[in-house]
Amino acid sequence: MASRLYSLTASEVQRQIQSRSLRLEDYVQSLLARHRIRDKDVNAWAFIEPDQVLQQARKLDQIPEETRGRLHGFVVGVKDVIQTQGKTRTSEFAATTEAPGTKNPHDSSRSPGGSSSGSAAAVADQQIPIGLGTQTVGSVIRPSSFNGIYGLKPTWNAISAEGQKVSSLTLDTFGFMARSIEDLQVLADVFALRDDEPPQAVQLSNARFALVKSPVWPKAGPGTIAAMERAAQILRDAGASVEEVALPPEFDNLLAMQNQVLQAEAGVAFYREYNTARDGMSDKLVDMAANIDTCSKKEFLRAFDTIASLRPKFDQIAEGYTAIITPSSVDVAPVGIEWTGNSDFNGIWTALHAPVLNIPGLGGESGMPLGVAFVTSRYKDQHLLQVGRAVGPLFAAEGGWKSGL
Amino acid sequence: MASRLYSLTASEVQRQIQSRSLRLEDYVQSLLARHRIRDKDVNAWAFIEPDQVLQQARKLDQIPEETRGRLHGFVVGVKDVIQTQGKTRTSEFAATTEAPGTKNPHDSSRSPGGSSSGSAAAVADQQIPIGLGTQTVGSVIRPSSFNGIYGLKPTWNAISAEGQKVSSLTLDTFGFMARSIEDLQVLADVFALRDDEPPQAVQLSNARFALVKSPVWPKAGPGTIAAMERAAQILRDAGASVEEVALPPEFDNLLAMQNQVLQAEAGVAFYREYNTARDGMSDKLVDMAANIDTCSKKEFLRAFDTIASLRPKFDQIAEGYTAIITPSSVDVAPVGIEWTGNSDFNGIWTALHAPVLNIPGLGGESGMPLGVAFVTSRYKDQHLLQVGRAVGPLFAAEGGWKSGL
Repeated sequence: MASRLYSLTASEVQRQIQSRSLRLEDYVQSLLARHRIRDKDVNAWAFIEPDQVLQQARKLDQIPEETRGRLHGFVVGVKDVIQTQGKTRTSEFAATTEAPGTKNPHDSSRSPGGSSSGSAAAVADQQIPIGLGTQTVGSVIRPSSFNGIYGLKPTWNAISAEGQKVSSLTLDTFGFMARSIEDLQVLADVFALRDDEPPQAVQLSNARFALVKSPVWPKAGPGTIAAMERAAQILRDAGASVEEVALPPEFDNLLAMQNQVLQAEAGVAFYREYNTARDGMSDKLVDMAANIDTCSKKEFLRAFDTIASLRPKFDQIAEGYTAIITPSSVDVAPVGIEWTGNSDFNGIWTALHAPVLNIPGLGGESGMPLGVAFVTSRYKDQHLLQVGRAVGPLFAAEGGWKSGL
Repeated sequence: MASRLYSLTASEVQRQIQSRSLRLEDYVQSLLARHRIRDKDVNAWAFIEPDQVLQQARKLDQIPEETRGRLHGFVVGVKDVIQTQGKTRTSEFAATTEAPGTKNPHDSSRSPGGSSSGSAAAVADQQIPIGLGTQTVGSVIRPSSFNGIYGLKPTWNAISAEGQKVSSLTLDTFGFMARSIEDLQVLADVFALRDDEPPQAVQLSNARFALVKSPVWPKAGPGTIAAMERAAQILRDAGASVEEVALPPEFDNLLAMQNQVLQAEAGVAFYREYNTARDGMSDKLVDMAANIDTCSKKEFLRAFDTIASLRPKFDQIAEGYTAIITPSSVDVAPVGIEWTGNSDFNGIWTALHAPVLNIPGLGGESGMPLGVAFVTSRYKDQHLLQVGRAVGPLFAAEGGWKSGL
């Protein structure tokens, strides 16, 4: 048992610590051993100081039980655009799709996705139970899909993004990844995600899902097409209704407008680096930063204002359903670790500020994992986790994919 | 002459340094002497280290002329919510109107306004030529009016606000204050403010101004009523047209909606401090932070989305004029330094993300200064500075107020 401590979820670890059947130090030893054995293949970490981590675990074990915090025992990997120590890898400022050298733990010839590459890979690889990430286009949901783990991108600015390197102010969203809904729930509560209405358990027999293929459906690969069909069938078998819903035509250009806003805002966000450290930046990031001097403000504002006008319209559509289901990624993780993969299925939800939950359990070619994205209107994050609580076990049991790690 | 070096603008100092008729060290000595004599009355600084400032000036004097930066010789005071060293005073996290103890340099029984209190007072008092500030409601424009100096609140997110303590993510705007348009112009260029169309000199004889009294006009005091009349007369005397324009009724609730967004977003922004350092926060800020647990997301979103829908509508109205003129403050700086004054005339322009320029030169009771706010559609910041270049000298000559400092 002790040799597989690393495979526990954070909540399981916390319960064992509370019942005094586990010391944090032993658990952390197990994680560090796992890291030592595995990370030469996965390469998830930009910075890790094992002695310091262990020392901290020992200190935490000494804290009297009655004064321990809500996250006592939670070991967290932090994406390397967030101010702290002990970092997981990311693409340059989380702004490009050029990869940081991290590999998919399920197949080291494949990408883990990005830009929250290291956080996702380390969680899937059981080196840590929780990864913190950020999403500007698809940087939490896509790697969660590629690695077969849960990922939550909450409603935009429901959690402060202060302390993250800004890339696009109105798109950047703090998010987190884990191997269980229970762990995500603890984080959601600690970060004070709150719906207006207290969330209630979701009964799938009364649930109504909209299958939104989104305007980029022609890009879906065979894995994603099959996974969406399987997901819909599992939900229907559980008594839920699943109806295909198309967004109105005014949403057709949303992905292009999202990219326009991203490019213009990146020009502002990277102006300091552009002015003071251009030699240290990749050509691609320099190009993005150069938008400060070139992009049309009028066209930017048209995109910015149109997206803003679509948000309440989307909310109204989404309010009619328990949740929307839509692809998390084009297909399974692509072969090759130079590129973190296509994020076209993710951008519109980020632009709409809608919460998105990746639920794993489905699979595609070569035994690789695939997730499905569940989406609601803004500030239904807690409800969305209830959806995950109902759907997650079904996907795990009937989705056809299990982690071999 | 040397004894009044502190009264030069930053651009004048730079020219004298370039022509080798001034050493930065001597100028800084003059500023520090001014600070020593005056700041016991004004109390503008949260942190200043004179020896370090002087040492830095000497180092800068040693830099070869050909490698000096665009801001060489610019001495800048930085509001104490921005990451750096050497800070001017502000109210708590720039989020409340409870004052930091700074006094109006024109009358120490009066407020300098806030929350960029120290930056504005130090600029007016000739302790520094340039002050950096932030505005979430009226924290650049109101203190500029109260202190008789220029202040620019640029288009929202035209300049990255990264490194500022966040108070309200979609309202917080970085801005700056100076005693001349020329100095603001240098900062605008260095911070890469750019209109789509290259700005052209404004000919007042062809100019067309809209006088927008705004929905809170009944709050205007006698000083502001007279100043707006005087400003309109000066513009008309210069050949410009000035017509009174009312915003459509849908703008009537904009100030209330702005406050709703501010309260909800402050709940998110101050959640960390609320959770970890509540004892160090004022009751008022604790109340704002508590919104994370209480405010209705539905009502917040209604305000957030409605404001977003009003931005392009306002732009369209503003495009019909050279600029809009509107009050910068309710009246002159109020007596008493416990409160930084009413910002009701400022909030709607911040919510609309529109650039605002305070032009000084007018006055009210007891010889106190008053400014007038000039506003344009988004991303006309450079054009707005051209308006200031045309109007500023007229207000200085004919506005009826001159600084006695």
